[in-house]
Parts: sequence; C-alpha cells; structure tokens
Amino acid sequence: MERRTQVRGGWRGDMCNARFVGTELCAPSRGTLHPRATPVTSPFALLQEILVGKYGEGSKLIYELQDQGGELLALRYDLTVPFARYLAMNKITSMKRYHVAKVYRRDNPATTRGRYREFYQCDFDIAGQFDPMIPDAECLKIVHEILSDLQLGDFVIKVNDRRILDGMFAVCGVPDSKFRTICSSVDKLDKMPWEEVRSEMVGEKGLSPEAADRIGEYVQLHGGLDLIERLLQDPKLSQNKLAKEGLGDMKLLFEYLTLFGITGKISFDLSLARGLDYYTGVIFEAVLLQQDNEHGEEPVGVGSVAGGGRYDGLVGMFDPKGRKVPCVGVSIGIERIFSILEQRLEASEEKVRTTETQVLVASAQKKLLEERLKLISELWDAGIKAEMLYKKNPKLLNQLQYCEDTGIPLVAIVGEQELKDGVVKLRIVATREEVNVRRESLVEEIRIRTSQC
Amino acid sequence: MERRTQVRGGWRGDMCNARFVGTELCAPSRGTLHPRATPVTSPFALLQEILVGKYGEGSKLIYELQDQGGELLALRYDLTVPFARYLAMNKITSMKRYHVAKVYRRDNPATTRGRYREFYQCDFDIAGQFDPMIPDAECLKIVHEILSDLQLGDFVIKVNDRRILDGMFAVCGVPDSKFRTICSSVDKLDKMPWEEVRSEMVGEKGLSPEAADRIGEYVQLHGGLDLIERLLQDPKLSQNKLAKEGLGDMKLLFEYLTLFGITGKISFDLSLARGLDYYTGVIFEAVLLQQDNEHGEEPVGVGSVAGGGRYDGLVGMFDPKGRKVPCVGVSIGIERIFSILEQRLEASEEKVRTTETQVLVASAQKKLLEERLKLISELWDAGIKAEMLYKKNPKLLNQLQYCEDTGIPLVAIVGEQELKDGVVKLRIVATREEVNVRRESLVEEIRIRTSQC
Repeated sequence: MERRTQVRGGWRGDMCNARFVGTELCAPSRGTLHPRATPVTSPFALLQEILVGKYGEGSKLIYELQDQGGELLALRYDLTVPFARYLAMNKITSMKRYHVAKVYRRDNPATTRGRYREFYQCDFDIAGQFDPMIPDAECLKIVHEILSDLQLGDFVIKVNDRRILDGMFAVCGVPDSKFRTICSSVDKLDKMPWEEVRSEMVGEKGLSPEAADRIGEYVQLHGGLDLIERLLQDPKLSQNKLAKEGLGDMKLLFEYLTLFGITGKISFDLSLARGLDYYTGVIFEAVLLQQDNEHGEEPVGVGSVAGGGRYDGLVGMFDPKGRKVPCVGVSIGIERIFSILEQRLEASEEKVRTTETQVLVASAQKKLLEERLKLISELWDAGIKAEMLYKKNPKLLNQLQYCEDTGIPLVAIVGEQELKDGVVKLRIVATREEVNVRRESLVEEIRIRTSQC
Repeated sequence: MERRTQVRGGWRGDMCNARFVGTELCAPSRGTLHPRATPVTSPFALLQEILVGKYGEGSKLIYELQDQGGELLALRYDLTVPFARYLAMNKITSMKRYHVAKVYRRDNPATTRGRYREFYQCDFDIAGQFDPMIPDAECLKIVHEILSDLQLGDFVIKVNDRRILDGMFAVCGVPDSKFRTICSSVDKLDKMPWEEVRSEMVGEKGLSPEAADRIGEYVQLHGGLDLIERLLQDPKLSQNKLAKEGLGDMKLLFEYLTLFGITGKISFDLSLARGLDYYTGVIFEAVLLQQDNEHGEEPVGVGSVAGGGRYDGLVGMFDPKGRKVPCVGVSIGIERIFSILEQRLEASEEKVRTTETQVLVASAQKKLLEERLKLISELWDAGIKAEMLYKKNPKLLNQLQYCEDTGIPLVAIVGEQELKDGVVKLRIVATREEVNVRRESLVEEIRIRTSQC
C-alpha cells in the first residue's frame, strides 16, 4: 500500500508536466502477467519534448497531438521512456515492475502481421543498482519462460551488448560521431542482406569501404561461450576497453544462463543492434523460427516477438540532478504473438470455449422466470459463474443450444416436478447425461463437476 | 475465438473512421472483473464529431486533440459511447461485456476525492433485445454484489426511469423542448439544495415558477414498491403514457430485485436524473452513506461510486441504417472506491502485503550466488513465485529484513551444510521457525505452507 500511495502522490505532483494525472491500479492487473513484479502504469500522453531524442531513427513515428490549450503532446511510443521518467519524478531507485498497455506509432499498419498504430506492449523491468548481470539474466529467463509456455514453436533469443558493438565500431575505424547511425544500419540486417546494409553505410552514411568490410566480418559471427572466449582473445577487440567490459559481462551472463538451463535457446550474435538509442549494455531479441522447413536449411527467423536490453542512462535524463538508476527490461510483442496463435488456431479448426460460465440456469416449462432468478441469485451468491437467457419463457432447446454454441459445460434445469421434489436437474452438456441433485447440494456438485472440466 | 476474430476484423475496418486500430485482448483482462461477461476494449481516441451531442452539459469537458494530419480527435469521455459505436460498426446485436479502461475529462482535478483528468472506469453492459427488466435487474445485482463484497460500508442504490421523469415534467407543465435541460437541473439535487435548483430552473432556464413547484413536490418522493403503486394511482401521472410505462417497468424491476433479495438497499427516488443525454429508461446510482453519524440523523450520502442505466437509442445513432440495439449498463467509479479504501487503510494503520512472492531464495554464507540461481530456477520452473536479492553476497540479515518489509512469508536458505545434506532450510517469517526440507520436497512444502497463509 505504501508503494501505491507513493505512486499516486507522484503522479499527482506530475500534473503540470504531463497534463494527465496518471494512476496506478493494482487490483485489475495484479498477477496477470508476472507474479514476481509490481504493476505500474503511466500516462498515455506526455509533453512531446519528453519523447524527443530518445528513440533514434524511430522518432519519426511518434504520434503528436495538440490539445485545446495549444500544448504539444505526444502519445506513448513505448513503455520504457515513461517508466524511466516515472522513476526519476518519484525518486524511486529500486523497483521491479510490469506493465501491459497500449503504445502508438504513426506508421502504416500491417494488420495481418499484427502491426497496428495502436497496439499493446507488455513490459517487464528491473531498476536499481545491483551486481552485474543478475537482473539481466532474469529478464532472459522470463522471455524464455513465456515463449516456452505459449508453445509458439522453436525460437532463439539473440544477445549482444552495445559496448561490444561500440568497441567493434571503434576497432573497425568508425568515427565516434557515426556510432549511432551505423548501429541503426546494422539493426537492419534481420530484414536486409549485408550488401544493402553495406551500401547504406558507405553511400548514405559516408563510412569508408574498408571500415564497412571490417564490420561485415564481425557481424557474421554468432555462437555461445566459445565465441565469447575467442573474441576476448581477439587481438583488436581485446585492446578496446568498452568491448572488453561488454565481453566480460557477456561471459558472466552466459554462466548465469547455464545455471538457469536455457543456453540452448540463446545465441550471442554480433549482428544484433536494436534500433533504439537508449540502450547502454546488454541487448536481446527473441525470434521465432520457421516451422515447416522442407529443404532442411538452417531455420529462418519469422519475426521478433520480444526485445529489450539495459538502459542505464535514461532515468538520469529525467532527473533534475542527473542521478542515474540502472535499468534492464524487456518488451513482449503480444499483438504479434496473438496473431500467430490466432492463425494457428484457425488452421487447426479447434473450437475454443469463449466463456468462463460454469452453468446455465434453464427452465423446462413456461412461467418459471421467477424460479430461474431465485436459483441464479443463489448460485451467484455462492460464487458460481452462472448465466441465464434474458427471456421470460425461453424454449429448453434454445437454452441447450446456447450452451453448445458457447461451451458452457453444465445446465441447471428447474421444472415443476423438480421444484416439488426439492431438486434441480443437472445436465452435463458434453455427454447429455442428466442427474437430479438436491437443491442444497447443487453448488457443491457444480464445483466438483467443473473442476474436472 | 470466433468473437475475437470478429472484433479484430471490426476494428480493422474501423481504421479510416477512428484513426486507431482498436484491439481486443482477452488474455490480460479476462475474468478479472466479472466472469460472466466478455472483455472488449475500444480506441482511446475517436473523431471528435463522434462524441458530440451524446453527453449533454458534460460535453464541455471533452478533451480535444488535433493530430499531425490536422484531424480533430477527442479522447474517450466514457466507455459507453465507444461501446455503442463498436456494436454498430460490427453489427453485433447481442453481447454482454466488461471493460476496465481510462477515460478523460478536461476538468479541474480534485485528487484527494479521487477525481482526475485521466481515470479508470469499470463498465459492464448487456446489449440485445430481451424481455423487459431482466438484464436491468442483473446490472443492479452486480452493483450490489461489488459494493457488498468490497465492504465499503452502508450504501443505497437510487433507481428512477427517464420515462417517469419525462412524464413528470409533462404533467408539471414543462415544455418538451426543456425536458433535457430541466433534467440536468434535477440532476444537481444531490449537490445543491432544492431552492438553488429551483432558481436555476426559473431564472436561468425560463421555467414557470408553478411548474418548478410542481416538480419540487415530486422530487421529494422516494420509497419502494408502495411508492410505485401510489404513483400508478396518481391522477396526473397515471394519465401520462410515458410515466405509466416507466412505472410499470419499475414495478417489474422491484419484483425481480425482491427475488434477488436486494431491495433493502434499493430506493426508488424521483430526484435521481443522471446528467447524460443518452439514457432512455431505467437509471440508477449507488451512493455510499456516511459512516459515523453521531447525531442519529438520517444517513447522508458521501458520493456516488457507481451509476448507469438503459440507453436504447445510442447504438442506432452510429448505425448507417439507424438499427437500434437496446442496452443497459453500469459504470463503477473505481478511482473513488480506491481512494476510499486507501483512506480507510491509512486510518487503520493496517499493513498490507505489497507482493505476491511466496518465497525468497537466500543464502547464509558468501559465494553461494550460483546455488541461489540454481534453486530459484527450479522454483520458477515449478510455478512457485520466488525472488532473490540481485547481489552476489547479500547479508542474511538484509535478506530476512527484505521479507519483513515486503511481506514475503517464506525464506528458502541455502548454506554449505544444507547443500552437503541435500536439504534447504525453510524459514517461516512470521514465527521465525526454521525447518530443514529435503530439496526434492521443497516445492510441495512451499505450496502447503503458502496455501495456509
């Protein structure tokens, strides 16, 4: 409760900056994504200037809005920047949180692939000064856990480190001022062949062909602990302070991931760059692999479903005194995951139950509306999920059909004889079996029967 | 799944109108508010013209925004109008849904009373052509259930009907053209004394003093079935078609509420008007009553925490052919409810557990990070909610203190001796009792212990 009050207080004080009073509601979302973290929300819109300069080339997709008062606002582009701002404004130095909410991109939607202008993201972040790589390893463990549990098929989580990339750029001869823009080019390697990326680097971004070719050699590399060890011995990289730090931490990370038993799905991949400017250390991206590979080729990625990394500088950008809070986090692309699950379900023609209702309260004859209302009220009061048709005199057949259509497993039927006998006829929809249950045992009987479903 | 696809398809086709592709996500919200309804979401912003003319005098609080393309948008003012539009756009004629989401009012916030510019509402609606008053009664049953379960103290649910109000206005001599604006004045009776409301009616709105005085007599009335019967005999009201219809349905409603056993908290109240223009039938509002009434006076209302009613015309306003879908729904003011619960909790100084974590994985000596990682990974894989401190060598005292602070009930301690013996020391935080548990029984032991907490 202390935390909630603190949070609320924070947003309250925030008003003049963000124009909207954000509110944090624990109850509706608690525990739905991740039981080990606190849910925190943020306002959906902020002053436009808050978002400027945080996203690199993605910034052109920020959705701007002007309100009646003439103030320029921008819609939440992701959940990371608002979270960093939230930590700074509320002087929170340690927190583990999740947030499921909508973000906005002024992009051309591709609905079939699950790309929308307004879409949900699902974020998990760990903020605070801790010993290296322990929270980072937990983020990867969580991604692994989610993708495994959802049974989305084979996947790989690519891992890299911004410091390794920057060190690599330095030893390849990229000038400091071009690090971010060359990083953006490398980021396109999952969608474009190397030749195109190279020509962007040299043609558009003015990199020397020699530097580009040196980068080209590194970004082909991917592997595990063995590759890390090899690069730690690399005569050029091992001389670069940043790269050495990054490689050392990468080694530690792999040790922890070995303890978690998940290195089988992790690939240290030098071509992974991530587009956003705010990452400072470990970065990662989970990619689903093509299912049906007829030609026995190496599995092909069919799209990123989660990504994240370490952003140690972002909170400091919002703190008046520049105080830093190191953070690491992950975004799950649930729209993409849903569209994959949906497609698969459509293909399988499996029928999915669309309701949680346990029992339909029905009547066998006319003039029993009052009896249905009495019975459903008893069931509701006992915590049973019950429904009835909103008709005075529904036909029994229609009531049974409704259960077939929606997947309600049980029907509690009241009829004149049953009322006289003090029983309710309980029908099991799947088997069409019917049993008379004494009214006082009905709740218990429904509980037993639905716990088996 | 059928419904989800339908919904998605709908929003997809919606794009040109609403600029945002709304998406419906069942998973994160399913079952959190109400197990008997489907969750549906709507876009947070719509073309401004969609919201115009739906809210009456509240319209001045609509938040307008202009996007880069120069289009005038408006933020969702409530969840009812977007839901009605959603039904029309997707040609859905029958649905039961809930929605927990933020709405926006360009108002002066009063944060201490739980009034914000951006705040959550919690809506439940039943759409479809059904026999009279059955879904309406269910809405009232749900409000009763929520307010009782939350133990917010004594409350009353005021009920009225727009048709009774309109009939009353007619027999009092209010011209048809003034029905809505006089209705808005009546709506202020919960905040203003009758004398002020009367002078607004006569002074600002040009009603004759005689008509106002006749209204003044009716709006003092409140009661139950007896009052309904009396008004059905009222020489003037009983001659008015609308009033008669409304009173007939009100009688039916009270019969159903009697079967639900909740009439004790329901008051048929002729002063209840509800500000919004879109209501067409039954309206209701739940009000918490003052707790500490030292003077033994009649209980005083301390604010509305839920409200709703029947809006049979709204869907037709969005349907190109004007096809109507009758609806009834309720909005729960969860921010208000939260601020009441918070205040009460602060006053009681009760400590609330801020985490769902069941067990902290701790170590008694240094150099046991690897062992902690291995153990926590085992617990996570078994579905146990476990945490550990992100430190290489945390002090045992700090780890125990963390549990005290956050309310984690159990600590699983690994130490050198325990590792040798193949056990884990399980500490019960509340009692400080410690037991050695064989590693292979740990998950089971944690489950048993936490199911008792």
